[in-house]
Amino acid sequence: MEFRLIERIRARTMQGREDVRLGIGDDAAVLAVPVGQELVAAIDSMVEGVHFPVGTASADIGWKSLAVNLSDLAAMGAMPAWALLALTLPQAEPAFIEGFTEGFAELAQSYRLALVGGDTTRGALTVSVAVHGFVPPGQALTRSAAQPGDVIFVTGTLGDAAAGLHCLQANVQSSAHGDYLIGRLNRPTPRVQAGMALRDMAHACIDVSDGLLADLGHICVASGVGAEIDASLLPYSSAMLGLFDDVSARDFALGGGDDYELCFTVPAARAADTQANLARLGCGGTRIGRIVEGQGVRVRDAQGHWLDAVRRGWEHFSV
Amino acid sequence: MEFRLIERIRARTMQGREDVRLGIGDDAAVLAVPVGQELVAAIDSMVEGVHFPVGTASADIGWKSLAVNLSDLAAMGAMPAWALLALTLPQAEPAFIEGFTEGFAELAQSYRLALVGGDTTRGALTVSVAVHGFVPPGQALTRSAAQPGDVIFVTGTLGDAAAGLHCLQANVQSSAHGDYLIGRLNRPTPRVQAGMALRDMAHACIDVSDGLLADLGHICVASGVGAEIDASLLPYSSAMLGLFDDVSARDFALGGGDDYELCFTVPAARAADTQANLARLGCGGTRIGRIVEGQGVRVRDAQGHWLDAVRRGWEHFSV
Repeated sequence: MEFRLIERIRARTMQGREDVRLGIGDDAAVLAVPVGQELVAAIDSMVEGVHFPVGTASADIGWKSLAVNLSDLAAMGAMPAWALLALTLPQAEPAFIEGFTEGFAELAQSYRLALVGGDTTRGALTVSVAVHGFVPPGQALTRSAAQPGDVIFVTGTLGDAAAGLHCLQANVQSSAHGDYLIGRLNRPTPRVQAGMALRDMAHACIDVSDGLLADLGHICVASGVGAEIDASLLPYSSAMLGLFDDVSARDFALGGGDDYELCFTVPAARAADTQANLARLGCGGTRIGRIVEGQGVRVRDAQGHWLDAVRRGWEHFSV
Repeated sequence: MEFRLIERIRARTMQGREDVRLGIGDDAAVLAVPVGQELVAAIDSMVEGVHFPVGTASADIGWKSLAVNLSDLAAMGAMPAWALLALTLPQAEPAFIEGFTEGFAELAQSYRLALVGGDTTRGALTVSVAVHGFVPPGQALTRSAAQPGDVIFVTGTLGDAAAGLHCLQANVQSSAHGDYLIGRLNRPTPRVQAGMALRDMAHACIDVSDGLLADLGHICVASGVGAEIDASLLPYSSAMLGLFDDVSARDFALGGGDDYELCFTVPAARAADTQANLARLGCGGTRIGRIVEGQGVRVRDAQGHWLDAVRRGWEHFSV
């Protein structure tokens, strides 16, 4: 079934990109990276029951399998171009395939992304996507460039996906707020435009896939610095605040994963500019703390007390 | 476990490639395609129980998961450069990981291939590898360039992997011949050097992954031509001839998959040169038939009679 299924999905993604010299239908794709650009590449897998609950709509699986990869490109400041898709399915069920195709293609189209290769195999539901994008030489954002004195920002709002998963798992009564949070879990928005805009503003950048503490911890380790967060500055959606108290919201934001917002650091002198630029992009950017000498991530409450990560159950997220 | 495992494998593949600007450890790799080269990219998955028998040694799984992808690059005439690895495992068993790493790295090293990204997830054993290589602009080999009058060649010997699988499944008594065939199944040799050498000799090219009839059928469809094969010319290993009669060997060669030899077509005037070049490369090349006007693949026996694909059980391989 390899070509038929992959070809069906391809037909719904971007057609006629000039940099695709030979697309699906041969042993491999032939591609042309634009002159003067570096290639940025990542691969991520999603497994049913691990990365999305059993019963997730296939359109959401298609969307999310691409979104989590585009989020990796966003964290590098790269412009998306091409994807390869390896899809393992228990059986070739038409409704599943139609839904998957729709979700994958909808997101691909908004970035002019072309599906240039793929493979379908039979087995437990697993989706691996490799994405490729471009960045001007030397301008890729990394985890390792944070400096003491930098201001720490995040895009969007935090904790929504973890709160959405809680709504699903605890069978919280259906509501507009709950639907919003579940939508944030199932259809995350990769912050591609923000990542590209940050190329000449940010020092370090990462996407929040494992939770803010864990991912900011990665920046700290890679950069050889520490970080201080003011919990009172964490940005929440109105759905979050409508359904959960402050303490729950804070726990979702700090420890929960799957948000796919960007966490990045900028020199203090650029902080106001950065905020204005991100506001123009629509996703917004919120200052949540600062980079300091030392190591590790510490969180301070509104009264200025340091929170105890161990007691709060975040210790397995600390680095 | 993502970074530790992927980092361990990376440490055993090629280090210090200049075209890897940023390797494993960030959200994505940053890569530089050499000026004046096109990028060739493919992805393939292997699922336990589908692409390799349950109980296959993990070193063989590591080797084969990369080999089948390098074979796709070989079929395009590309030089391998980088790989991304998505590994789904039921548990992080040290012996499995050590073996997988060894097999993957052994093959990677022989092509100076760098592992530049990866993802590990928990689930049913599934290995997806995306490979990237380079080819001079316009020189990629394709399935669609065969012309009537071309001579059809294959590298190496055919049917060994299918015969090896038969030995495994039928519990054929262990022997040097049987071990050789099982080795061909578990550790296929991607014909990378042959593929690169064929860039300016071959018209069409494909790797034999689904069986000669099926794969040559793909060339015929893509090129709008037919093909005639002389069964008496099919190249067999001495292990095959030592264990199986001619009819079984022919069935393995025509219908069996997993050989990862190259099947390609060259203008008749270049056939002698081609044969000499492939002999120098060590894998050898054998003329097995010719491209004709029309469509489909026909097979003729030593007496000149056309074989009946339906009666022989190959009909599901025909196109």
